Amino acid sequence: MSKVFDENIVQQVVDELHVADLENATIGDVLLVAQRLQEKTGIPFIRMDQGSPGLPANKIGIEAEKKALEAGVGSQYPAAAGVPEVKEQASRFVKAFIDVDITPRSCIPTVGSVASSYGAFIACTQCTPGKDKVLFIDPGFPIQKSQLRVIGAKWEQFDIYQFRGEKLRDKLEEYMKTGEIAAIVYSNPNNPAWICLEDSELQIIGELATRYDVVVLEDLAYFLMDFRTDFRTPWQPPYPPTVARYTDNYILMLSSSKIFSYAGQRMAVMCVSDKLYERHFPALAERYQDSGIFGQTLVASILYMITSGCTATTQYAYAEMMRASVDGELDFCADTQEYARRAEKMKEIFCANGFHVVYDRDVTQKVGDGFFFTIGYPGLSGGALLRQLLYYGISSIALGTTGSLQEGVRACTSRMTEDMFPLLEERAKAFHADHNQSQNIK
Amino acid sequence: MSKVFDENIVQQVVDELHVADLENATIGDVLLVAQRLQEKTGIPFIRMDQGSPGLPANKIGIEAEKKALEAGVGSQYPAAAGVPEVKEQASRFVKAFIDVDITPRSCIPTVGSVASSYGAFIACTQCTPGKDKVLFIDPGFPIQKSQLRVIGAKWEQFDIYQFRGEKLRDKLEEYMKTGEIAAIVYSNPNNPAWICLEDSELQIIGELATRYDVVVLEDLAYFLMDFRTDFRTPWQPPYPPTVARYTDNYILMLSSSKIFSYAGQRMAVMCVSDKLYERHFPALAERYQDSGIFGQTLVASILYMITSGCTATTQYAYAEMMRASVDGELDFCADTQEYARRAEKMKEIFCANGFHVVYDRDVTQKVGDGFFFTIGYPGLSGGALLRQLLYYGISSIALGTTGSLQEGVRACTSRMTEDMFPLLEERAKAFHADHNQSQNIK
Repeated sequence: MSKVFDENIVQQVVDELHVADLENATIGDVLLVAQRLQEKTGIPFIRMDQGSPGLPANKIGIEAEKKALEAGVGSQYPAAAGVPEVKEQASRFVKAFIDVDITPRSCIPTVGSVASSYGAFIACTQCTPGKDKVLFIDPGFPIQKSQLRVIGAKWEQFDIYQFRGEKLRDKLEEYMKTGEIAAIVYSNPNNPAWICLEDSELQIIGELATRYDVVVLEDLAYFLMDFRTDFRTPWQPPYPPTVARYTDNYILMLSSSKIFSYAGQRMAVMCVSDKLYERHFPALAERYQDSGIFGQTLVASILYMITSGCTATTQYAYAEMMRASVDGELDFCADTQEYARRAEKMKEIFCANGFHVVYDRDVTQKVGDGFFFTIGYPGLSGGALLRQLLYYGISSIALGTTGSLQEGVRACTSRMTEDMFPLLEERAKAFHADHNQSQNIK
Repeated sequence: MSKVFDENIVQQVVDELHVADLENATIGDVLLVAQRLQEKTGIPFIRMDQGSPGLPANKIGIEAEKKALEAGVGSQYPAAAGVPEVKEQASRFVKAFIDVDITPRSCIPTVGSVASSYGAFIACTQCTPGKDKVLFIDPGFPIQKSQLRVIGAKWEQFDIYQFRGEKLRDKLEEYMKTGEIAAIVYSNPNNPAWICLEDSELQIIGELATRYDVVVLEDLAYFLMDFRTDFRTPWQPPYPPTVARYTDNYILMLSSSKIFSYAGQRMAVMCVSDKLYERHFPALAERYQDSGIFGQTLVASILYMITSGCTATTQYAYAEMMRASVDGELDFCADTQEYARRAEKMKEIFCANGFHVVYDRDVTQKVGDGFFFTIGYPGLSGGALLRQLLYYGISSIALGTTGSLQEGVRACTSRMTEDMFPLLEERAKAFHADHNQSQNIK
């Protein structure tokens, strides 16, 4: 046996932190267990749990933010709809990198994409009485379901694993034809599975969204991190696939956290389709005693009531990072491609030691390398694998907690550093030696 | 007649901006009308509408924030409960300036006090089934009621004008004995009326909060701005009155917006009584599938789901501004006292021209001078006064929109500058000449 942490010490820490169910633990709990074990023993952990950026915050953003601080913008409430600079640059950004037209008015900064989805869930589920459920194309980001718990809204979900390509149509329609679905959510590339919905799938989603009048929330947290195709040149094709080409019922969520390594500053924009922005919903007007215009209600009667705008200087930072990208002065993909390099090596090490990639294919090609990947090990459930990996000093998230029916864990590449690879290899080998053996004994 | 803007142009702008009911317009709408009139005519407005700081952002905060940006804290998600520095300094701040003991754990940074009350409303109204209404001791901040509209919670409210001192007890009990009140909210000093609840009144609120198990949300947005008593020396009496001396069921909301002129950066702390933080509520545990411990649920299952923490660098800025204040290096009252100087002069001008202060007394003394004051004019309702003042180039908020039953408007002193006083005097005189005359004719 060559475990790094013995079962007793792991159990001690789990008890100490009141983690009720380690195998289904949240990201936050796994993170605390790993941190505490490392603290207690001095033995370094290979932290594949939280999806926090592993690169320094973008320097163009930092400089712009310092300049804004010096200019004194910190004293005055920022406009509820966002400062004009960030709205203008977000509009240019989606045109330059996605080839989608959205006016600056409809690009709304929020306190991270978490606040975007929170606000959008509220608006979407209140537009039409009875049409108040959210449909998750899972696996997905567990926090979005927790948001619905706060709001008190209901949801449906399914694991897309068995429903790729044309099969997606019937599956989606099964939920949508009830008339209860107000919004559909997915992330592309996907957190946790790193699968990417292909153009044909987005077309299905878009067509059904129009037919059943459902708003599609497309989470672009890992924007342009599908490195199988080079999308990085602004104003030039190829452009990444998006549902925005197939319906007017969409909101794109563009976080600064991963693409500019700006997670600590909590800044995103939600880019609302102009047609959706302008739609009038009597139920919104009645509830908020306002115009009932989707975008106006969202900004002035919902988001403003939650945080009254977002940090002024960070809005200028985000504006400047987007401007520099659009104008070809900043190649943010050159930074984030580092995650793909790490993923490739990590997958290699795991796969050489009895593991396999769980979500391994899109419709037409193999899943690429990026911020996350998924791995499984024969004979182990996702929860058991999470627990066993902890004994070998590797932290991860069980796929079951993300709405997946597959057995495995999510691995995040962001904290991996060059000097940790030999350690990962050693631990993966030890894991395999122990588990392979134990399988042979049985 | 000596109006600055004639009725037609005001009506044009009101129509252009789709303001449905000018006399009951929100702060946001009045602000837009004033801005647009100024833009259209080039004639400067005396802007008494929005309570935005009229002083530069605190330099100690700006420097700390720049340092944090340079240190690279912008890349990583801040801890859900806040960075240790801001928690520690908030705990010291409430001890040094209010003489109240709250552990750093229970001091939670939020994206402005708007996010504090939003999160607290959710938590408080979900603790106990059936106990789900909020009681406003009005006049108050209209946004807090709008927050309940987003959440879908109900409220009760009354105008405290007729219920000062011992009369407050029966009035409060009338609502609380139904068992439906989960939380009570007020600001002290009060927005909009600048009245201050006295120690005897806070004692009544605290005693009843304990008896009826109700959480008191004490909004300290204008902390230490009651300049009738000098509270500014840290660690030394006199300390300002607070409900925290009379109950364990409280949350203090401490915004950085006004005391440090930091509104643009969206940062506050909510200081939860330790006893309340530690209480277990089965309904919270069930809804969130968590521990159901009030403070833990509030941080990890509610606030985290709304914004996933708040801007990292701003947390360091707020920590440093509080530290400098507590350590006697920063006298923030010296800055904010400027508002009192302006209020005194503005009230003098209005009162010399037929106006009167509406909320003019606390239980034992006259209302002081500070960020806001209230004025009325004989024979005019609050809404009519708002409209008439606009014609004379002065913007304000009708008291009716703040839950007040008194006729008058709220005036904010923050945007008033030295060079505007002659203009204010001229316009107030003109207003009085026109209105006094018209009264005489009748």
